[in-house]
Amino acid sequence: MLPPSFVAADDAGAVLALLRRQLDVLVRRSPFYRELFAEHGVAPAAFDSIEAISKFPFTGKQMLRESQAAAPPLGRHAAVGMAQVVRVHASTGTTGRPSWVGVTSRDAEAWTEMTASAMRRQGLVASDVVVHGAGLTLFVGGLPVRDAIERIGATMVPIGTGASEKAALAMSSLGVTTLHSTPSYARYLAEYVRERLGRDPREFGLTKIMVGGEPGGGEPAFREHIQNEWGATVTEGLGNADMAPILFAERPGTAGMRYTGGKHVLVELIDPVTGDAIDPEAGASGELVYTAVDRECCPLVRFRTRDRVTVTGMDTDGAPLIRCIGRTDDMLIVLGVNVFPSAVRDLVQTLHPRTSGAIQVVLPGEGPRVEPPLRVEAEWGESRDDGLAREIEVLIKARLSVPAAVTLVPPGSLGRSEMKTRLTRLDGQHTP
Amino acid sequence: MLPPSFVAADDAGAVLALLRRQLDVLVRRSPFYRELFAEHGVAPAAFDSIEAISKFPFTGKQMLRESQAAAPPLGRHAAVGMAQVVRVHASTGTTGRPSWVGVTSRDAEAWTEMTASAMRRQGLVASDVVVHGAGLTLFVGGLPVRDAIERIGATMVPIGTGASEKAALAMSSLGVTTLHSTPSYARYLAEYVRERLGRDPREFGLTKIMVGGEPGGGEPAFREHIQNEWGATVTEGLGNADMAPILFAERPGTAGMRYTGGKHVLVELIDPVTGDAIDPEAGASGELVYTAVDRECCPLVRFRTRDRVTVTGMDTDGAPLIRCIGRTDDMLIVLGVNVFPSAVRDLVQTLHPRTSGAIQVVLPGEGPRVEPPLRVEAEWGESRDDGLAREIEVLIKARLSVPAAVTLVPPGSLGRSEMKTRLTRLDGQHTP
Repeated sequence: MLPPSFVAADDAGAVLALLRRQLDVLVRRSPFYRELFAEHGVAPAAFDSIEAISKFPFTGKQMLRESQAAAPPLGRHAAVGMAQVVRVHASTGTTGRPSWVGVTSRDAEAWTEMTASAMRRQGLVASDVVVHGAGLTLFVGGLPVRDAIERIGATMVPIGTGASEKAALAMSSLGVTTLHSTPSYARYLAEYVRERLGRDPREFGLTKIMVGGEPGGGEPAFREHIQNEWGATVTEGLGNADMAPILFAERPGTAGMRYTGGKHVLVELIDPVTGDAIDPEAGASGELVYTAVDRECCPLVRFRTRDRVTVTGMDTDGAPLIRCIGRTDDMLIVLGVNVFPSAVRDLVQTLHPRTSGAIQVVLPGEGPRVEPPLRVEAEWGESRDDGLAREIEVLIKARLSVPAAVTLVPPGSLGRSEMKTRLTRLDGQHTP
Repeated sequence: MLPPSFVAADDAGAVLALLRRQLDVLVRRSPFYRELFAEHGVAPAAFDSIEAISKFPFTGKQMLRESQAAAPPLGRHAAVGMAQVVRVHASTGTTGRPSWVGVTSRDAEAWTEMTASAMRRQGLVASDVVVHGAGLTLFVGGLPVRDAIERIGATMVPIGTGASEKAALAMSSLGVTTLHSTPSYARYLAEYVRERLGRDPREFGLTKIMVGGEPGGGEPAFREHIQNEWGATVTEGLGNADMAPILFAERPGTAGMRYTGGKHVLVELIDPVTGDAIDPEAGASGELVYTAVDRECCPLVRFRTRDRVTVTGMDTDGAPLIRCIGRTDDMLIVLGVNVFPSAVRDLVQTLHPRTSGAIQVVLPGEGPRVEPPLRVEAEWGESRDDGLAREIEVLIKARLSVPAAVTLVPPGSLGRSEMKTRLTRLDGQHTP
């Protein structure tokens, strides 16, 4: 029996043929890939089975940045020029200048198809009315998600970020069924509705909260909090600014996200240290790696996403289901133990309403190695309760196996974000 | 010979047939129009020639607001329900709650076609790279303009508002040829580039500035200032949140905007006081009135736009060219003379760089009638120059025939907007 795979068995033949052609195109049109393949002594002909992708070299974010710096604006990895590009997005990353992501008409159509497929899996149907509460500018989860909502035939209400009053107005008057946003914003907007409008978010009658763009939607306590606030079901999607807006999506009631990108992307799970392939069996954990099967502009080959995922189980037909546990960039190592700040947040969330749920890990220097104890600031909730800090320390030690020093701070002092929320800060930096 | 008309002679037959069918649909599906037509004793059959549109009653913004309040969310004038609506925009107006503007797939396609037609007339071609620097959320000039840019095959860089740093970054690295924004923002962004980045906007090499969303692009000195700042040609478009994103657009080098909405809209020019039709001959002035020929959701019949325009001349084929001189809502009456605050701004702009160009008219109470003198605050520019106030007063008296009292204020004190700029404020209100 074959090992479980993200690519559907029915699609494997087509993916093999399409990707082989794609690799040929890259060698002809992209100096970046031509040189990279030559350096590694590999040619498109070597791609003679899906598994043979492992013969090809990895690429990473820094390589793309350097490629763009060397040949602005789209980079030496781009296989078409600006004349064929219909739209430019940006991958903001966690630091520094954005890198540009160009999209041709064909790329845009593939994104719409993939994103619509993901959102259908999350339960979106033509009769839904969706508040799009995510950035509509350079953010890859913006305009392409709008295209998908309209492709499905649902009603799109373009709110963007920073317009909570308009979001609430739309929800109270347009028969809105669905909110699409980051999990941070789904949480923030509920807080806004309660505190600024004095209303219960449940009054709006939403049934679906579709989140993505950052981890959080898969953290059980964080998700439970959002579901309780809105009285709606949370599902999450996972995408990548350099690859596609949504590539994995969760059907309500399943235990994880399934690959929904069809024949457009070859997905691998690898050991982040050795780079070796990992079979996506239940319980497996590793880093996602993407190869574009038919991308025209800014194509990627074995792109290391830094997204750390675990396989939570299998769908009825044997397809792997996953959860993202955090980004390698954010991962901390305390006494040899891997700790994701999002896991700390989820633990603290379990003590809501005694905590507000907001936390920040304070780092003495650049990670990932952190001298113990792990310094955590957490907001108290209903009232100050000095025993709470110790309680959180015990919880972190018990569940995450690392010693922590918790400081309680007043509600609201750790800031709120309408986009992605940062869960760490360097010591000496202000809370954003 | 027929009087000049906004509808092309070749389109008149189709417009007549389509609009007659549209009026039939409205009577069947929209209680608002059924009752309105009955009250005025008029039936769709009365529309037996283009000119016969004058038999039908006017509609106005307040009627649409009341219609939406009576039958939320889309109103009694809507001819389809939310199930057929793919997107909801809002008309913010100058005051109060937004009113919703629903769009079906067919409406969206018509908007894309009209908007692309307008932008082609403004000179946009497939090889252009466009920074879209206008709101991408509920604003009608946002997402539909994006659709038009992509329809033309140009490259769309979605920046939106409030992201001047990103706009400048895009301009300095993506080979941007074109900025689409409000005239206020085109001006503000140049100021931002000079003052915050210490660069000359001309360094970016833009060739086209396409403005709309508010008056200003047609004010000669204001336009000249923007053209000089960017070293690029300014063209303007005119739309209406309730009707279509762009309905009139200017070809570079022509003296005004031409109707570019094809068969989708029947445009009239009327006397704003008597409501009588005015032939759009050179020199004529009046209010624009729109009737939707084939709109499915939120259709309009003889909608009074409040946009005051003058016919500046005729295109080579006899089509009228117009400039918008302001909105009736903003018009002031001083000693019986009509004064548009935008005209005051344009006069003050002629004294740049001795003034920054920013002004605000301070009103003792709700307009339009203002006791003389007209109170104007204007920012000084390079340095304070007390003779300047008197000079502006003389200029306003000479050109606009009204007495004015001008107060000079420091640069920056009248605020800057990344969207539409307000040119008036009530006495006692803070500068925004």
